[in-house]
Amino acid sequence: MAEKITVALDAMGGDNAPYEIVKGAAMAVNELPELTVKLVGQTQAITDTLNKLKGENLPIDEARLLIVEASEVITNDDAPVMAVRRKKDSSVVVAMRLVKNGEADAFISAGSTGAVLVGGQLLIGRLHGVERSPLATLIPTANGVSLIIDCGANVDSRANHLVQYAKMGSLYMEHACGVKNPKVGLLNIGVEEEKGNALVKETYPLLKNRTDINFTGSIEARQIPYGDADVIVCDAFTGNCILKFYEGIAKVLLGKVKESIYANTRSKIGGALLKPSLKNTLATFDTSKFGGAPMLGLNKLVVKAHGSSKAKEIDAALHQCVTFASEHIDEFIREAIDKDNEVVGD
Amino acid sequence: MAEKITVALDAMGGDNAPYEIVKGAAMAVNELPELTVKLVGQTQAITDTLNKLKGENLPIDEARLLIVEASEVITNDDAPVMAVRRKKDSSVVVAMRLVKNGEADAFISAGSTGAVLVGGQLLIGRLHGVERSPLATLIPTANGVSLIIDCGANVDSRANHLVQYAKMGSLYMEHACGVKNPKVGLLNIGVEEEKGNALVKETYPLLKNRTDINFTGSIEARQIPYGDADVIVCDAFTGNCILKFYEGIAKVLLGKVKESIYANTRSKIGGALLKPSLKNTLATFDTSKFGGAPMLGLNKLVVKAHGSSKAKEIDAALHQCVTFASEHIDEFIREAIDKDNEVVGD
Repeated sequence: MAEKITVALDAMGGDNAPYEIVKGAAMAVNELPELTVKLVGQTQAITDTLNKLKGENLPIDEARLLIVEASEVITNDDAPVMAVRRKKDSSVVVAMRLVKNGEADAFISAGSTGAVLVGGQLLIGRLHGVERSPLATLIPTANGVSLIIDCGANVDSRANHLVQYAKMGSLYMEHACGVKNPKVGLLNIGVEEEKGNALVKETYPLLKNRTDINFTGSIEARQIPYGDADVIVCDAFTGNCILKFYEGIAKVLLGKVKESIYANTRSKIGGALLKPSLKNTLATFDTSKFGGAPMLGLNKLVVKAHGSSKAKEIDAALHQCVTFASEHIDEFIREAIDKDNEVVGD
Repeated sequence: MAEKITVALDAMGGDNAPYEIVKGAAMAVNELPELTVKLVGQTQAITDTLNKLKGENLPIDEARLLIVEASEVITNDDAPVMAVRRKKDSSVVVAMRLVKNGEADAFISAGSTGAVLVGGQLLIGRLHGVERSPLATLIPTANGVSLIIDCGANVDSRANHLVQYAKMGSLYMEHACGVKNPKVGLLNIGVEEEKGNALVKETYPLLKNRTDINFTGSIEARQIPYGDADVIVCDAFTGNCILKFYEGIAKVLLGKVKESIYANTRSKIGGALLKPSLKNTLATFDTSKFGGAPMLGLNKLVVKAHGSSKAKEIDAALHQCVTFASEHIDEFIREAIDKDNEVVGD
């Protein structure tokens, strides 16, 4: 059997907690024999949910679905740094402490992004030599999947941070997604070397000089959906804007397609005939299969699932943790960063 | 009759020059009795195109379609500053000089964005008190149209620049698009006041203090396609990324819908039935009707049309110039900036 892995899961975080979170955990445990999930949160709420799921005939493997009590919940209204420092008995803080103390190998939350980012840095800590921990998000493209890094952790990044993102992102795409020699593009407003803002202009030559990164130059945002680069490197402000715009525009455009189907009788019949094929094609653009955004460069894996996550996303995020652990991605990142620091130290 | 307006049009700029450019001019002149277009470029090429259009039975009003010779062409391969300084007989430089000398009221080009931006600043010049001239682009949304400002002119903007963009963008939306008291949103990665990068954090309170701007707070990129704000203020790097991503993702998603229609016989029949309604609905997302992006805050109007512009876009850009002139938008901007400077000067 594969290596065992224990994940601390924030059972109280997200719009659909605890029901969808606990359900996702139960599904993943049934699918992955090597997985144990520590459901962190209010015991009563979690127990009630497990009983409800049993009533819905979902098999509950109680030996690998453990409950860890945490009485408090951090909400999106809490200021992240304050919340992590003060709500010591919150599901986020209790779960992260489990990871820190070696009682879990990874942490997943669909709760407050801010609290997860702050907790990742303060409680779990960065790998030695990692200057900033970026949030990396997989997005569907016309020919597969690409990673946008950083998507929301560090808004005012420096050039050397972006170079580390490029390296960590490459290792993630290679080992977690099986992309050989991933193409790294620097998000820019033109493809020419002299284009860009101050940050991009400073980062470009640094990436160009790296022989261990398959840097293919600047990538314009227009090319992202075509999958021209496997790893798209940017500061968190731009990355977060792109990611959120993607969510919004996809919903609005597909909503328009739906609107056109319901317009009249003729279009309704057309829509009914087209539906199976349309569903099939658009399934490739379903982001829920990716589960969540890993925060790279920490001592242990932290995954931020989308606030609106349902069981399917949590299940996918747990699969992601198992891949991360079984492929030893953290070891690859640790080695790469250490090697860089040796070179710098010479 | 409405006030007369003369536009200097770069007949050589863009992927489809000169044919589509000249055709767009001929169309606009036929539609707008107050308009005269100076077609700037290689006389022979322009004359040949006009003859071709006559052969296609497009009425050519030669009294209001004047040719101004410019022997050189600035391409996208030319470095913008260098090109504007050295290619003194290029269509961009000759046309801009016409505007500068009062022989034309506005300038349109579908050619090199860099050259247009540089030429706008160097040859036409900024209004007194305007610190940076932003490129403002209209984008279609679920409930109409919004303006993203800045979309590509000034990549490393400062907070006071963004405040001027907010003011100029508001005036443009009000007078060019008829939006009363336009809602201004600051593009951000969260709606809370403490969110954002250094630039946004500095800009937020400045916008909040303005009683003459209908500032509605931060807007996340997710909400842009819903039309939550009429004016979206951002630095040119982020704005350009969003705009180009919009282009790319719309093409890819609608391509996927098309792919699903051609998948099999059933879906083809469905697609055929759905087509009229779908076309109708998606027409609201057609960007070609907007014509081009105005560069605001210059002494005269400069419009950057998309590089891939066809006659329809050039026609729309010329309509835009007429609106701009007849609504005296430049006067409103001049007054607003002057008033601000008086306040600052006090």
